[in-house]
Amino acid sequence: MTDTMQQLLRYANTLTDLKNTIALLQWDQETYIPEQAHQERGEQLSTLNTIYHRQQTASELGELLKRAQQVLNDQSSDKDKALVRVMVRAYDQATKLPTEFVAEYSRLLSQAHVAWVAARSQNKFELFAPHLEKVFNMNKQSADYYGYKDHPYDALLDLYEEGLTTKQVTEMFAQLREQLVPIVAQASQNWTRQLELTTPFQKDLQVLASKAALRAIGYDFNRGREDASAHPFTTALGANDRRVTNRYANDLSFIFSALHEGGHALYEQGISADLARTPLSEGVSLGIHESQSRFWENMIGRNQQLWQSREFVDIIKMFPEQLGALTSQDFYQIINQVKPSLIRVEADEVTYNLHILIRFEIEKAVIEGTLSVNDIPSTWNQKYKQYLGVDVPSDAQGCLQDIHWSGGMIGYFPTYTLGNLGSAQIWDTYKQKDPDYQETIRSGNTKKILNWLTANIYQHGAIYTPSELMQKATNQPLNPAHYLNYLQQKFL
Amino acid sequence: MTDTMQQLLRYANTLTDLKNTIALLQWDQETYIPEQAHQERGEQLSTLNTIYHRQQTASELGELLKRAQQVLNDQSSDKDKALVRVMVRAYDQATKLPTEFVAEYSRLLSQAHVAWVAARSQNKFELFAPHLEKVFNMNKQSADYYGYKDHPYDALLDLYEEGLTTKQVTEMFAQLREQLVPIVAQASQNWTRQLELTTPFQKDLQVLASKAALRAIGYDFNRGREDASAHPFTTALGANDRRVTNRYANDLSFIFSALHEGGHALYEQGISADLARTPLSEGVSLGIHESQSRFWENMIGRNQQLWQSREFVDIIKMFPEQLGALTSQDFYQIINQVKPSLIRVEADEVTYNLHILIRFEIEKAVIEGTLSVNDIPSTWNQKYKQYLGVDVPSDAQGCLQDIHWSGGMIGYFPTYTLGNLGSAQIWDTYKQKDPDYQETIRSGNTKKILNWLTANIYQHGAIYTPSELMQKATNQPLNPAHYLNYLQQKFL
Repeated sequence: MTDTMQQLLRYANTLTDLKNTIALLQWDQETYIPEQAHQERGEQLSTLNTIYHRQQTASELGELLKRAQQVLNDQSSDKDKALVRVMVRAYDQATKLPTEFVAEYSRLLSQAHVAWVAARSQNKFELFAPHLEKVFNMNKQSADYYGYKDHPYDALLDLYEEGLTTKQVTEMFAQLREQLVPIVAQASQNWTRQLELTTPFQKDLQVLASKAALRAIGYDFNRGREDASAHPFTTALGANDRRVTNRYANDLSFIFSALHEGGHALYEQGISADLARTPLSEGVSLGIHESQSRFWENMIGRNQQLWQSREFVDIIKMFPEQLGALTSQDFYQIINQVKPSLIRVEADEVTYNLHILIRFEIEKAVIEGTLSVNDIPSTWNQKYKQYLGVDVPSDAQGCLQDIHWSGGMIGYFPTYTLGNLGSAQIWDTYKQKDPDYQETIRSGNTKKILNWLTANIYQHGAIYTPSELMQKATNQPLNPAHYLNYLQQKFL
Repeated sequence: MTDTMQQLLRYANTLTDLKNTIALLQWDQETYIPEQAHQERGEQLSTLNTIYHRQQTASELGELLKRAQQVLNDQSSDKDKALVRVMVRAYDQATKLPTEFVAEYSRLLSQAHVAWVAARSQNKFELFAPHLEKVFNMNKQSADYYGYKDHPYDALLDLYEEGLTTKQVTEMFAQLREQLVPIVAQASQNWTRQLELTTPFQKDLQVLASKAALRAIGYDFNRGREDASAHPFTTALGANDRRVTNRYANDLSFIFSALHEGGHALYEQGISADLARTPLSEGVSLGIHESQSRFWENMIGRNQQLWQSREFVDIIKMFPEQLGALTSQDFYQIINQVKPSLIRVEADEVTYNLHILIRFEIEKAVIEGTLSVNDIPSTWNQKYKQYLGVDVPSDAQGCLQDIHWSGGMIGYFPTYTLGNLGSAQIWDTYKQKDPDYQETIRSGNTKKILNWLTANIYQHGAIYTPSELMQKATNQPLNPAHYLNYLQQKFL
């Protein structure tokens, strides 16, 4: 390795160590922090983020990256090429916005968050509207700073999913909308079974069952841990430290949260060890990451065979009073209920992407200037009626439900749908390699599936772009047909 | 406040945030880290320590401190004066050693630690001796770099206890040695009662009892928490986040560990809120810190009245099989057993300071050049026989027992004795203010004692030097007579 590449690697090590340290400050804030320490934790996070940003934007790094680009040649390893590409991308993202603009945007987001919380709790969109308008305007300005070829929204999409374009997303959702609406209408008539709860799910048993489910799918507790938090999440504190959290309500959601976060964590635990302490030791994008959380939550977790495997039968047996009377068929129907609803995060596999479609259509229209922020509520409600057949009783349960816009995350939502589509496409590819996949799952041998995913996706970390990786793993670009087929076969 | 002082305060905030973040990385490493993440945590700590060191030695800080020293005047607040003094001291300590020297010392300590572990486990002092010799030599060199008036050991003592001199420590131990040896001989004949254990102490009950003890002495769980670790410690993750840990063996030690660490934490929880995010929001020195851990562990925790208070009677009742048959007098004797022994960390109140005396005499002699490192084992063993009357069967249980020397901490041990002496002197002062102190304790009103300590010691944080603080709180300089009196009255 040349001196330049060694220097770059050391620089990457420092950035990664800082990033993992920031993740620890956040993890602790969500799990074990004492009640009165929240404010000063915010100050500590701000100090560490400032130090991180200074390192990420240092002219020293800019010059090092220029030299590294000159040093790269055809003989350079995929890892070296990727390290330079990914670090140049991060450096550009961090330096293209003027410092003044970043400071102003940061102030705006603080205010927007406060306004959003108030607007949602009082069900008054008008409290949030002026801030949201500024958020959209500043995102349009950022798009100009970042630069784009065809559409300003491209620059925003690219922040969350490298290379994704408005044209691709528009086509993807056109195909989905056309076919999903009738599937939802039919499936929601047939998949109506609900769990009737007479005895609560004890929290301590949920904790044990959640860990048992994680262990069953191959999550390595020597390189991670599971704790409780208000909202489940996965976080990277190091290459050998990928932690998940769960929340324990009085229903079955803890199992699917465990499998969802477990999917994120399996992906990260599968990244090749020689990428440790670099930005390549991460999932490559939000979309690919979500494809793995959805894969383990839905393709595996909501699969009928899984619940006949010894490991998962044992989990059911932990709750005899709640689940003991159900047949295997009952249980399968309950965990696959289809019900058009108001709230995205509670949506099932069939309806979920219509929630995203609505958000995408609105974001795109506002960025294009064909929809004003003040008209978002009426447009939102009309689309929920049109696509999902539900009446939105209040903005709090409508366009104010998600935190994303108040956090400035315009262009983020489509990655959820990319994840869903990707999960089905990868599932189809896997099934071709393992025609006995049903027996694989029923026998509890999900390790076989994990090994295939690790070899074809996980180990590569962020070496390839999301579209390159999808092509490598499935021999084709992302194609919504797989997900639509999956839904049709499963639900119709 | 002048611009200069505001700049200095902001600089102090960044340093403190970094220090607290490093403390979080270490706390997590001792409590919740996954098994395989230890090595990368070491790398993260090294990165953060490098960043901290760079901030602590930046020429920008040096210039800021010079300006601040010029800005200070008679009207400046105690806080401002102290902030400058403490930050100048830290800057000097961090910059007086040449960078090359620091790097070489750091390499030496890594090797010395490995050698010490091997030497201790194989009981071969000769494996450690060459490294220890270098450690002593480099400490002599550091003393030259730091500078000193009378004795090179002064410079080392000052690192751990600002202003402490070899002359003071020598006089202190001369007085202690003369009077302690006969007290030990007599007390160890009379205080021999041991706990006879037939049923183990259940771990989950120990955890509950430990928290109950902390709560009883006023530890605020909204501004801290208690977790399990291999060795108990207290750590500061923020002004409102002072955490303790405990370990749960099959004996009563968990109670006294809880009170010991609780004492450290009460001190830090009592520091005035307006010192937060500065180096003044810490205990002022190791000696004063230890005076508080010892105060709560011994003066309060091993006090007969405490165990008649409702809170502590309830703790005894949690262990009916282990403690139910004991009279109050039995219990008091058991928790105050006096027994000359080999191991410092297991020593009782009466014998403890003789262990420190031996280490001090050896360190001083090696620094003065009157004792060679190779002769440490024989000198050690001879002193243990002379002062404590015990035969040292092996170096592993003798001069290899402590981690301090392999960590380069020459001059650290005397602070333990300062703590013990200080605890008794502060206790005497308190008793004068509250002649009904026995009833105060028996009624469970230790809050009254905590309030006095907070008003007279804790709130000040690191504003005053250790000797100034002792003078303020007790109206006299540190004086061993209080501790010797305390032992005589309690044990003879």
